[in-house]
Amino acid sequence: MIILLKENASEQQLNDLSRWLEEQGVSLHATKGLHQTILGLIGDTSRIDIGQVMQMEIVEDVKRVQEPFKSANRKFHPLDTVVDVSGAKIGGGGLAVIAGPCSIENREQIHCVAEAVKKSGATFLRGGAFKPRTSPYSFQGMQGAGIELLLEAKKATGLPIVTELMDLSQLEYFDDVDVIQVGARNMQNFELLKQLGRLKKPILLKRGLMSTYQELLMSAEYIMAGGNEDVILCERGIRTFETYTRNTLDISAVPVLKKLTHLPVIIDPSHAIGMTEFIPSLSLAAVAAGADGLMIEVHNDPAHAKCDGQQSLTPAAFDAMMQKVMRLCQAIR
Amino acid sequence: MIILLKENASEQQLNDLSRWLEEQGVSLHATKGLHQTILGLIGDTSRIDIGQVMQMEIVEDVKRVQEPFKSANRKFHPLDTVVDVSGAKIGGGGLAVIAGPCSIENREQIHCVAEAVKKSGATFLRGGAFKPRTSPYSFQGMQGAGIELLLEAKKATGLPIVTELMDLSQLEYFDDVDVIQVGARNMQNFELLKQLGRLKKPILLKRGLMSTYQELLMSAEYIMAGGNEDVILCERGIRTFETYTRNTLDISAVPVLKKLTHLPVIIDPSHAIGMTEFIPSLSLAAVAAGADGLMIEVHNDPAHAKCDGQQSLTPAAFDAMMQKVMRLCQAIR
Amino acid sequence: MIILLKENASEQQLNDLSRWLEEQGVSLHATKGLHQTILGLIGDTSRIDIGQVMQMEIVEDVKRVQEPFKSANRKFHPLDTVVDVSGAKIGGGGLAVIAGPCSIENREQIHCVAEAVKKSGATFLRGGAFKPRTSPYSFQGMQGAGIELLLEAKKATGLPIVTELMDLSQLEYFDDVDVIQVGARNMQNFELLKQLGRLKKPILLKRGLMSTYQELLMSAEYIMAGGNEDVILCERGIRTFETYTRNTLDISAVPVLKKLTHLPVIIDPSHAIGMTEFIPSLSLAAVAAGADGLMIEVHNDPAHAKCDGQQSLTPAAFDAMMQKVMRLCQAIR
Amino acid sequence: MIILLKENASEQQLNDLSRWLEEQGVSLHATKGLHQTILGLIGDTSRIDIGQVMQMEIVEDVKRVQEPFKSANRKFHPLDTVVDVSGAKIGGGGLAVIAGPCSIENREQIHCVAEAVKKSGATFLRGGAFKPRTSPYSFQGMQGAGIELLLEAKKATGLPIVTELMDLSQLEYFDDVDVIQVGARNMQNFELLKQLGRLKKPILLKRGLMSTYQELLMSAEYIMAGGNEDVILCERGIRTFETYTRNTLDISAVPVLKKLTHLPVIIDPSHAIGMTEFIPSLSLAAVAAGADGLMIEVHNDPAHAKCDGQQSLTPAAFDAMMQKVMRLCQAIR
Repeated sequence: MIILLKENASEQQLNDLSRWLEEQGVSLHATKGLHQTILGLIGDTSRIDIGQVMQMEIVEDVKRVQEPFKSANRKFHPLDTVVDVSGAKIGGGGLAVIAGPCSIENREQIHCVAEAVKKSGATFLRGGAFKPRTSPYSFQGMQGAGIELLLEAKKATGLPIVTELMDLSQLEYFDDVDVIQVGARNMQNFELLKQLGRLKKPILLKRGLMSTYQELLMSAEYIMAGGNEDVILCERGIRTFETYTRNTLDISAVPVLKKLTHLPVIIDPSHAIGMTEFIPSLSLAAVAAGADGLMIEVHNDPAHAKCDGQQSLTPAAFDAMMQKVMRLCQAIR
Repeated sequence: MIILLKENASEQQLNDLSRWLEEQGVSLHATKGLHQTILGLIGDTSRIDIGQVMQMEIVEDVKRVQEPFKSANRKFHPLDTVVDVSGAKIGGGGLAVIAGPCSIENREQIHCVAEAVKKSGATFLRGGAFKPRTSPYSFQGMQGAGIELLLEAKKATGLPIVTELMDLSQLEYFDDVDVIQVGARNMQNFELLKQLGRLKKPILLKRGLMSTYQELLMSAEYIMAGGNEDVILCERGIRTFETYTRNTLDISAVPVLKKLTHLPVIIDPSHAIGMTEFIPSLSLAAVAAGADGLMIEVHNDPAHAKCDGQQSLTPAAFDAMMQKVMRLCQAIR
Repeated sequence: MIILLKENASEQQLNDLSRWLEEQGVSLHATKGLHQTILGLIGDTSRIDIGQVMQMEIVEDVKRVQEPFKSANRKFHPLDTVVDVSGAKIGGGGLAVIAGPCSIENREQIHCVAEAVKKSGATFLRGGAFKPRTSPYSFQGMQGAGIELLLEAKKATGLPIVTELMDLSQLEYFDDVDVIQVGARNMQNFELLKQLGRLKKPILLKRGLMSTYQELLMSAEYIMAGGNEDVILCERGIRTFETYTRNTLDISAVPVLKKLTHLPVIIDPSHAIGMTEFIPSLSLAAVAAGADGLMIEVHNDPAHAKCDGQQSLTPAAFDAMMQKVMRLCQAIR
Repeated sequence: MIILLKENASEQQLNDLSRWLEEQGVSLHATKGLHQTILGLIGDTSRIDIGQVMQMEIVEDVKRVQEPFKSANRKFHPLDTVVDVSGAKIGGGGLAVIAGPCSIENREQIHCVAEAVKKSGATFLRGGAFKPRTSPYSFQGMQGAGIELLLEAKKATGLPIVTELMDLSQLEYFDDVDVIQVGARNMQNFELLKQLGRLKKPILLKRGLMSTYQELLMSAEYIMAGGNEDVILCERGIRTFETYTRNTLDISAVPVLKKLTHLPVIIDPSHAIGMTEFIPSLSLAAVAAGADGLMIEVHNDPAHAKCDGQQSLTPAAFDAMMQKVMRLCQAIR
């Protein structure tokens, strides 16, 4: 961290500030120019609140050099984290494919989709039971009964399951769920993150529509600070001025996040673009960019899906896409 | 709602779609052009899921004419909602001023600030006890003990209090709180909104950093659908490409929201711009634009505040600003 | 400017870099930590290309302390620039009001509007002759003939005129134009800016839809570097994710730009919001925030305007707004 | 185009509007509901100004169904446009690779880079002679002398050349240039686009930092409306709230634009991300997504480049990347 002092900072003020900083456990080096003094902080600055320094009377500006996240930081943990769910892996060089319907609607639907995606090469089954919807008048998911059906499909296919938790009150239903998903709108629901940090279960953390890479990593840090180090990051489109697509897939998130952190990074093209016809192109792009996995919405009858049908692939379209994805993996990974 | 059908839609498909739509309680008028048929829907379309229509095979595009929010819609409730907390009002033509520190830090601080802001004309006292922080390593608020101190300050000054709830597990502390604040990051925490809809207590709902007007109104609708109609909307800056300011205050939200809804609309310039020196200008702008209230961070010692000191006015600066605000109100409101 | 060196920087590399920097006319102070060396640059860094430093092998990061603009910088020119056009002033505490139609359409229209806005208190007349339109199939303006009509209206009313130049090839028509407007889409048309820097005529420079404060100031710097110091900055809405309004008025631009620069700052609420009913609210907000002027579209028959009718006030609506604006000025300015 | 009328529209007003619309060459179908009348327009609506309709007194809202671009529209020209420069092609299934330095700096540099990129498989040579720079104090390019050197390198290698034109006054230097580039900041410099529409030379049109797909296509339409149909579209990153990367590459632009238009679509990852280490990942993603080409900055000595060194690959890094790109093409294209 570097602190620029105002021109008129007095010796006394500088001493006060220096003492306070050293109490935070860092050491200092001051560069005194003709007009301006610059303080360089050496040591672990991740616990220093940049806002608190900023507001001090003699401080003109503060620039962070070291990232404020530690557990998630690749600098301190160079090796890739590999999340292993009974042998199905996310991270470490392979490609995890999480597929299934937006919402679990009934037994036939989830079984039919589960069998189909397994056959095409999916390694995890997804399905929503608790659904965050913009309108209170839209279908809110099958709730606990949906989880039951998902667990049945897991038993039938052997695929580990991923499903979303919206609130801590729903936790009782998640005992046998393999990976808990935190949705984009909950990425900064800090109470939720803290509680999930106490579990022994992988967490799939979606990037908020408006969240920077650093904010995403700080949210992962909330979970990891509690002791749960199995966090999977998921880029699912950010909000920009372009409204033709549902969101804007930030493909750069793949190489950038993989540089900054050792956690696995996957892509959800379905929510990013919101239109089935473009999902294969984006999936191939994600794999080419180095993503550790894909998360894809598949529905046996998209035209009658209770939610997100316009962005759900049919099993046949998913199968065709998977063949291309596999050819791509063989060629460059 | 208007539905554009694809060129090749068959008579049979059109009949199926028409029947389904009529089952949703709307009536239809079809315009058949040479190449394209257009369906106009008449009636209450707020319960029709636009995504579900979009995904139907014969549908090319869907445009919503009627807004999807009902309880919050000014068309159906032309008169302003006035939230009345033991005589202190928000909405209906006056100007509510909610002031106080970002965080409650100790008894002296909150009492000192409460007395000061009351003297300068504030009508509500704010203070954070449960703090959403980007970093798990930052100060997380005094929690329940903070609420206790805030209640003491309420007793001493007679000012009704506003404070933030982050999670339903904290609800037990809020019995004597006058107005519950929902933070920007929780604007789409739908489980939380649903539960707050069952309370008999005004809710101050902050707009998310990347939420549209319509999404904000749909979140208000979640609360109102549960029976709680005392919702106050708060614009607090949105996230844009400009990073000089903390966020970008969307001043247009004032006249636009007041056209779309009967709910009161207030402005929080402190979080919007994040630098004290610009807060008076933005406050005056908000009042001139027609805002029903202001929410301002005031701290007796900003340089040592535990959070947001760089955007907290001193009591003296707040007092000077309030005098200008009052002159402005007299001149044009 | 502060330069952070990589951990493994050799003494030789550090010497080379230091020599190069000193050749650019700045002096250096180095802070050597255990792991990292920090260079602080003292002197005029506005001519140092931050990108060029960034790419050097031993450089980890570069942070600018001093702003890269000089002529436009309030630090070096503390007093407000006042642009004076035959007695009509922009800047320095008063309020300039520039009003008139989006496009000049015919003699009757421009005369009628000119007389009306003058009567209501406008101090400048605007009108477009060369029109930038998104579509090649839309009306492109009356061109040279439009300027002729505008000059007639100037003669009749005595109001100085403001009109847009799109390309240097049009310059021959601008001899008697008082203030030349550069549109938002041309804010970074650097060749145009350079040529305008050689004129002796005030330039009204609109902020681009996607341009930061600093980029706007750097574009003003292009003009001023050529010797033309009469630049007026105009905020006219930026592009964000919110699409209900045409653009998002960045009201914070007023106090922020006025801190950073001595140039006058005006607001164009017509283009910012794009809907007449909201323009008075935004105009009042702009004046309350401290703007040096307003730029307002007024048309005698908005429903038949050839462009931007939906954002043009009638003369009567403009008059009503101006009365409120004046009451506001008396109260707080 | 669909027009929603206000509830209180009179028969007379409706007749007036209908007559006006029919004069624009379209035919109408009216749907009269209980409260609202909807007009459906059939025919070529690309010349109808949506703003002009919007402002009419009886109009509540207008929605465009048909895209406002014609010449660029794939609906009317289903086959891919293939731009052919003496045998080097862009579009139609192959992969064009345009590589070279940001700025031409001297003879040795441009020859050295040209030979290197040719050897690695580049099909076009790029190099900037007229440079748009944010600061007037930065290097502005070698101008005409730079073009001379570029032409020499073309002769030596046989590679066709691509270089940027900033202003019409520079056109005299472009006689032997193969492809003229229009930069992102000039995407809506409509006078420039009109003039380029009269040339017989391919135009590489870069998407503006905050331009929508439709605006990009309308700018292409400006060129094509003049008779020049050889337009190549280039996505080079858009501006969003994320500032870690220089811009945000909108990879979805590839499949979306290729659906909407028959023009070739290429990607410039260098400007999009601005950091060399991430360029190979983004290039592979672009090719996997179906781009018709890549535009890559390569410099023989990035650390001493006069501009954009931090985003320029060395010839060796470019070569390594090209080998992966080719393996990818063989696998899935």
